[in-house]
Amino acid sequence: MSDEGRQLPGEFELIAEFFAPLSEGYPGAFALLDDAAVISPTPGSDLVAKTDAIVCGVHFHSDDPADLVARKALRVNLSDIACKGATAHAYMLDLMLPPATTREWLAEFAGGLAADQREFSVHLIGGDTNATPGPLTIAVTAFGEVPKNQMLRRSGAHPGDLIFVTGTIGDAVLGLKALRGELPNLDTTAATSLVTRYHLPQPRTDVGPKLLDVATSTIDISDGLIADLEHICGASKSSGIVDIEKVPLSSSARQACGGDPGLIAEMIAGGDDYEIMFTAPTEAACKIDQISQASGIPISAIGHIEKSASAKTNRVTVLDPGGKPFAVGDKGWTHF
Amino acid sequence: MSDEGRQLPGEFELIAEFFAPLSEGYPGAFALLDDAAVISPTPGSDLVAKTDAIVCGVHFHSDDPADLVARKALRVNLSDIACKGATAHAYMLDLMLPPATTREWLAEFAGGLAADQREFSVHLIGGDTNATPGPLTIAVTAFGEVPKNQMLRRSGAHPGDLIFVTGTIGDAVLGLKALRGELPNLDTTAATSLVTRYHLPQPRTDVGPKLLDVATSTIDISDGLIADLEHICGASKSSGIVDIEKVPLSSSARQACGGDPGLIAEMIAGGDDYEIMFTAPTEAACKIDQISQASGIPISAIGHIEKSASAKTNRVTVLDPGGKPFAVGDKGWTHF
Repeated sequence: MSDEGRQLPGEFELIAEFFAPLSEGYPGAFALLDDAAVISPTPGSDLVAKTDAIVCGVHFHSDDPADLVARKALRVNLSDIACKGATAHAYMLDLMLPPATTREWLAEFAGGLAADQREFSVHLIGGDTNATPGPLTIAVTAFGEVPKNQMLRRSGAHPGDLIFVTGTIGDAVLGLKALRGELPNLDTTAATSLVTRYHLPQPRTDVGPKLLDVATSTIDISDGLIADLEHICGASKSSGIVDIEKVPLSSSARQACGGDPGLIAEMIAGGDDYEIMFTAPTEAACKIDQISQASGIPISAIGHIEKSASAKTNRVTVLDPGGKPFAVGDKGWTHF
Repeated sequence: MSDEGRQLPGEFELIAEFFAPLSEGYPGAFALLDDAAVISPTPGSDLVAKTDAIVCGVHFHSDDPADLVARKALRVNLSDIACKGATAHAYMLDLMLPPATTREWLAEFAGGLAADQREFSVHLIGGDTNATPGPLTIAVTAFGEVPKNQMLRRSGAHPGDLIFVTGTIGDAVLGLKALRGELPNLDTTAATSLVTRYHLPQPRTDVGPKLLDVATSTIDISDGLIADLEHICGASKSSGIVDIEKVPLSSSARQACGGDPGLIAEMIAGGDDYEIMFTAPTEAACKIDQISQASGIPISAIGHIEKSASAKTNRVTVLDPGGKPFAVGDKGWTHF
C-alpha cells in the first residue's frame, strides 16, 4: 500500500468494520466470527446455490461507482436464483483487493451491499478477503430456497409452449454503447435509463417464485436472448421460434435503435439483460398475466417451441416482421 | 491469448471438457448445464458453508504444479468444514484465468480436483470461469452437513478444558522456508516431507465429525496456532495456556528446528497447518484417544483454558519447558 493515509486496516478489522454489520439478523452467520456459516433449511425445501464472479476490466470498469459494482456482483447471482423459482436469503463473498483499494471505496462498496440486502431481503453469511496484485475481483455465492424437487429447470420446454420474457430486452447492450459514445443522438433521459440498466441489473425476484406452477423451463438472460434460448432448446431437445417484433423494447431502446435491424440483432444477441425467459403452455397465459399484474413487471410472449427434426436442429430461428428468418450475426457472447 | 496453438476453448466447451465430468454422481449439479445447483439437505441436518479464495503470487506460486494448486484451493475449505464437525459433500468453483492459461494446465488442475473428489467424497456442483488480466485466482465454496444445531463453534471453551491439536504443527512454515533455501542443512527426505505439507494441506475430515459430542470449541489452524487459539479465547471469553514442549512436531520439523527457540516461535506463530485445534473437558481424554486411534491421526493435549480477569486478558500465554512465559514475536499472519 503506497499511501499510508489511505492504508486499509488488517483483514480482521476490515471484516469487523465493513462486513460483519451486513451479517446482522442471520444467526447462522455468527457475525462472521466463526470458521463457517450454518444454513438451516426450511423442512420440505431444497437449497438452490449459484456462484458468479466479476473482474475489473472484464465485467466492470475501474471508475464504476463502488456501490454499483457491489450490487451488480450480488444481483447477477440473485437473478439466477430467482429464475429457478427460488427465494434468495443469503450469500457469501470472496473479495480480491488490489493495493490501491481505499477505505472510502470499501465503505461505498459495503453501502451498496447494504442497500441491496434491504431491497432483496438477503444477508451476508460468510466470506474471504485477500490481497491481489491484479484487478479487483469479486466472487459471490448466493443461496435460496425452493419447495423440494420443484426447482425450475432449463430442460422442460415442450413443443407448443409459448416463450415468454420479463421486462425489456437489449437495454444493457445499448447502455454499454451509450457509455462508449456510440449512440450520440440519444437524449439524456434515454441514455441515463439505458446506462442504469447496464450498471444495475434488476433480478426478477418477484416473478421467479411465482412461476413454480406455471413455467415448463426457465433461464435468466445473461449470455443474450438467442444464446440463452438455445440453452433451453438444447436442454429441452426442441427448437425455438422468436418473432422479432414481439421482443419487448423499452421506450429508451426504441429511441436508440430506431428500427435499425443491425442494432436489433445486437440487442437480442447481446447479454446482461438479467430478465427471466421461460416457456409455458398456452393455457397458462391468463395466470402469467396475473403474475405480471401482481408484480408490476411486464411479461411478453415472444415466440413458441417446436419439435426438432434431430438433435442438430435443437436451435433458434428468429423471424422478421414479415415472418422470414432473420439473420443474427453473433449468437451472444461467452467470457472468452 | 497470444499462442493460438495453446488457445483455450470457449467457456461452454471448457466446462464440458474439464469440469462437467467432476459433477457426475451429484444429481443436483445437473451436469453443470443449468443456472443453479440444488442441494437437498438430509432431514434433521444443517448445511455448513465456507468460502475461501487463493491468488497466484499471494497464496501459491506460478510454477506450483496445477494439480496441487487445485487441491490446496479445495482442501483449505474442506478443513474449515471438517473442523466444525461437518461432513463435506459438495463445492462450487470460481476460476479467474489469465490469458496464458493452457489446456494442459487446466487438464492437470481438473485432475487434481478429481483425485481429491475421490479422496474426500465431494462433488463439484457449480461454478464460473472468467478471463482475467491479472493473476490466476480460485475461489471455492464448500458445503457440508452436520446434525441440526450441533455445528461446533469457536465460542464454547470453558476454564479447565484442555487444548488439543491434531497432527503436527509448523511443518508448512518450515516447508516454505525449505522452498526458499533457508534450511540448507536439512536432508532431502525431511525437506520433501515439509514442502509437501506446505503444498498439500491434510484436512482432518476423519476427526472433525467425531468431535461433535466431545469438543467444546474448535477452529482449524490457518492463521497460526497462537492466532487461532486467540480466536477461540476471544470467542469463548477465556485465556489459553500453551506448554511449548507439548506442541507436537514431526520428525522432519524436529530435524529442521533442532530446538531453535526462534524457529519454534515462527512455527507456532506461522499458519497453513490446517490441523484442528479444539478444547474439551479433561474427562473426554479417553474418548479423544479412541478417536485418534480410529482415525490414525495423532491428537495431542498442548495446554489448557483458564478464566480471564477481563475481556482484555482473553489471550494466549506460551510457557517454555521451564514453565516461564515464552516470547512469541509475530502472532500469526493476516492477508494484508
